[in-house]
Formats: sequence, C-alpha cells, structure tokens
Amino acid sequence: MTTEKLVAEIERKKSFLCIGLDVDLEKIPTHLLQDEDPIFAFNKAIIDATHHVAVSYKPNTAFYEAYGIKGWQALARTIAYLSTNFPEIYTIADAKRGDIGNTSSRYAKAFFDDMGFDSVTVAPYMGSDSVEPFLEFQNKHTILLALTSNQGAFNFQTQEDSGEALFEKVLKVSKSWKNSDRLMYVVGATKAEYFKTIRNIVPDSFLLVPGIGAQGGDLQSVCKYGMNPQVGLLINSSRGIIYAGQGENFAEAAAHEAEKLQQEMQLILDAR
Amino acid sequence: MTTEKLVAEIERKKSFLCIGLDVDLEKIPTHLLQDEDPIFAFNKAIIDATHHVAVSYKPNTAFYEAYGIKGWQALARTIAYLSTNFPEIYTIADAKRGDIGNTSSRYAKAFFDDMGFDSVTVAPYMGSDSVEPFLEFQNKHTILLALTSNQGAFNFQTQEDSGEALFEKVLKVSKSWKNSDRLMYVVGATKAEYFKTIRNIVPDSFLLVPGIGAQGGDLQSVCKYGMNPQVGLLINSSRGIIYAGQGENFAEAAAHEAEKLQQEMQLILDAR
Repeated sequence: MTTEKLVAEIERKKSFLCIGLDVDLEKIPTHLLQDEDPIFAFNKAIIDATHHVAVSYKPNTAFYEAYGIKGWQALARTIAYLSTNFPEIYTIADAKRGDIGNTSSRYAKAFFDDMGFDSVTVAPYMGSDSVEPFLEFQNKHTILLALTSNQGAFNFQTQEDSGEALFEKVLKVSKSWKNSDRLMYVVGATKAEYFKTIRNIVPDSFLLVPGIGAQGGDLQSVCKYGMNPQVGLLINSSRGIIYAGQGENFAEAAAHEAEKLQQEMQLILDAR
Repeated sequence: MTTEKLVAEIERKKSFLCIGLDVDLEKIPTHLLQDEDPIFAFNKAIIDATHHVAVSYKPNTAFYEAYGIKGWQALARTIAYLSTNFPEIYTIADAKRGDIGNTSSRYAKAFFDDMGFDSVTVAPYMGSDSVEPFLEFQNKHTILLALTSNQGAFNFQTQEDSGEALFEKVLKVSKSWKNSDRLMYVVGATKAEYFKTIRNIVPDSFLLVPGIGAQGGDLQSVCKYGMNPQVGLLINSSRGIIYAGQGENFAEAAAHEAEKLQQEMQLILDAR
C-alpha cells in the first residue's frame, strides 16, 4: 500500500488506530478453544468487530511462532482474510527482523511477497546492508526500531555520543539509505518527551507508536509532539483492546475500547 | 547443553566448527528437488557427512521462514534429527530475535522449549528486558549480537561515544544482566582487529564467529586474538561448506571442506 492510500484511509475513518493482534491462547475466551483454529477465530472476530474504526492491524510474529506450524497457518489465514475482505486495511508484521544482506532478502520476500504484508518492523543494529534489502520492495514500508517503548530502551538507544543519542543517529543515518522514503519508525508512546527531537529529524515519516494503554503511554502527548500535516502516526493498542472482554461478548468489548480510542483520535484530528 | 559439555565435545573432536544450514532451494543439487522434503533431505545429507568434524549446526531461520509452513516443518525435522541421533551436537537457532519482555518470552519458549534448540541469537538494541527472558532458561545459551560480520556494522556498532564503541557498551552492559553467565556473543571474523578489545571485556564467554570463507574472514587471526583457555570460539561456515559441491556428490564435497577446516583447527588446538 502507498503512503497516500494510508493517509486517505486515516482521513476517511478519522482514525489512526492500529490494533495489535498478539494472540495468547491462555487469554482468549475459553469457548474459542473448541474451534479447529482458535487463533484465527479470535482474530476474525476482533477484525470483524473493529475494522470500522481501525486503519491497521499488527500481528506480532512471536505470538504465532510460539504455536509452531499451527501459529504460522493462523497468521497466514489472518493476513489472507484481511487482504481479501478489507484491502483498504494496512497490515504490519511486527517481526523485528534484520540480518546480513542476502539473509534479510529472505525475510523481506517471506513477509512482503509470500505473506503479503504491507510492512514489517526491522531492527537497526546491523546497519544499512541489513535494512536495504527490505527497502527494495515497492509500495511496501520498512518500519525501523528507533526508540522502543520498554525500559531497556535506556540501555543503548538513549545513550548519548557527543550529545547525540543512538536513536537520533539511527534516524539520521537511515535517511541516507537507498529508498529511505519507504521507511517508517517505531517510537514508543512511553517516551513522549522525545517526540519533538524525533520530528526535527524525520518531519515527514510515519511513526508506529506502541505503548498506549497497558504500557502507560498517553495519546494526547504523543499527538501534540508527534503529529505532522499528513497525521504521520499509527497508534497501536494490543492488550487494551483485544483482551477488553473475557466472555462470549469479547468482540463487542474490543469494539467498545477501539471506538473510544477512535473518538479521541477524531477529536484530535478535528481540532487541527 | 551446558558450556562444559560443549567444551568437552570440542576437545574430543578437536574441532570448534559450526556449520550453517542456510538452505536455498535454488542452490541445492537439483536431484533433491524430487524429494517430498528437499530442505530436510539436504540437511540430513550434510549432517550425516560432516557430524564427525562439526560440534555445532546453525540454521538461520530466515531461510526456513522464506518457505512458509514447509520451511518450518523442515526446520523442526532437522532439529529433531540432530537431537535424536547426535545429542552431543550443539544447536543454534540463528534468529536474531528480540522484543519487549512478554513477547521475548514467547520467542524463547518457541526456540528453547518447543523446538529444543540449545541456543538462539538475539539482537541487543532493545536492551535488558528484551534479552533477560531468554536468559531465564537453564542449560540454554543466548547469543547476543555484538559486532556483526557485515559492512553495516560500521553504521552503529563501531561508533564511539567518549572513546567507547557501541559494541563495547553492549558487551559491558550485558554482563550486568540477570543470568549473564548464559550469554555468548556474535563477533564477525571479518573484524579480527577487534578481538583483543572484545577479549578484554568478556574473557570467559564463548564467541560465535561467522564470516569465515565466503565473507572473507581469516581463521588464524580470529584464533590468535579470540581463543581463551576453554577455546571459547565457535567458528561458523555456511556457504563455503554446504554448497561446496553441486552434483550427486555434494555431501562428500561438503565433508571435504569441513574436514579441511577441522584439520586447521586441530593444528591450532595442538599448538596451544
């Protein structure tokens, strides 16, 4: 999907909500466990109940790998379901991959060509030639980890080298890579005080922002400092939406939480 | 597997060779493509022909993910084949994973418990709480990327902050993490001049060293500066061994290349 189409969908739905499909069989309603594919059954119900207020879905691959072959089958079915029924929805493989060049090409092919994701998250540690194979794919985005939402982000990412933190260096250096216009960046909502610095370096890029809800990030602060004229934000919520309800009405509970976030987003968009 | 068992096996075989099982269906002998599971057929033949001179095998997960469900099945069969027939062999999932805590736990469970790998490679960018869930597993190792073999390593890893490069910081900081005695580190053979610095920081840790062969690294230099009293090195070769031959005798050709490396290693070990 092109950035233009994503922006158009954000404006149409008045939403920049991304829903994280991090399926844990110990947390989904027990009646679904009878289904032959409980992971897909859960995802389908969540998607059906929330797609009117979400512009993107983001399965984290760890939750699928943890269930082996069945997990990968459920992931493939989920993406196929989305692209067949909701081609306007932007899909993100939260995979945090990255390897030497010829190996990164393999990952890129798997996520973009074979599974059909619109984008994939990638770790920056190995540098340019580990990321550029992902950037070769037209109408796909590579979402580079910049400043993550967890506490461990302070170990290396915020460490300064002559006044410049590692995440700033990652943002700056990555702009020089081939096809860098296909880059987006992960910036945690729990690090709202850094958004101003980040927007100085990458004013035009989309930012994928996890950490709202369960992790404690605040939507208003993120938007105040992170929004750009094209909106430029995809705000992700996972647990706060998909596990909002535990019983038979779990999908309605998820829809309710997603709608609340969308309404907050609409107010912010209308106030621009 | 414990570090002690790995060291004992290195001394018994007079080898610290790890063979990278990076299977590409476009590169394996064409007669194998008739097999119902060509990836496993290739791996089995390589393992059968080389296990007498190798102490470890390292499938890179990208090559399996690229073939979807069939790839994951072939990977699971390969690891099951190794652990059933060669329990003395040390297995490495070269996956370069890493995520926020509860998500890293999923990856750790998948690779250690479900697939039964002895170790997994992990990226350090997200810091302590992204790595510690891997370190909780007893008799398993977490192999942290420190200084990788590719050109992109110079983008961030060697960048200095008041005289200390990022990879040095990764080595130092990681030593303070819980269960850090279960850490090993990836250090590329193409960066031999850094081994002295690295051994000053982590004198006792095992280093997984890719980049010999196709990528241009030199075994003698790596051993000169990288070896410790417990050997402390696993030298990986992938393409140089597994694609040494193209025809029906590909496994013999692989064995020949592996034996050459083992003999070089034996000379180095005997000269200690």
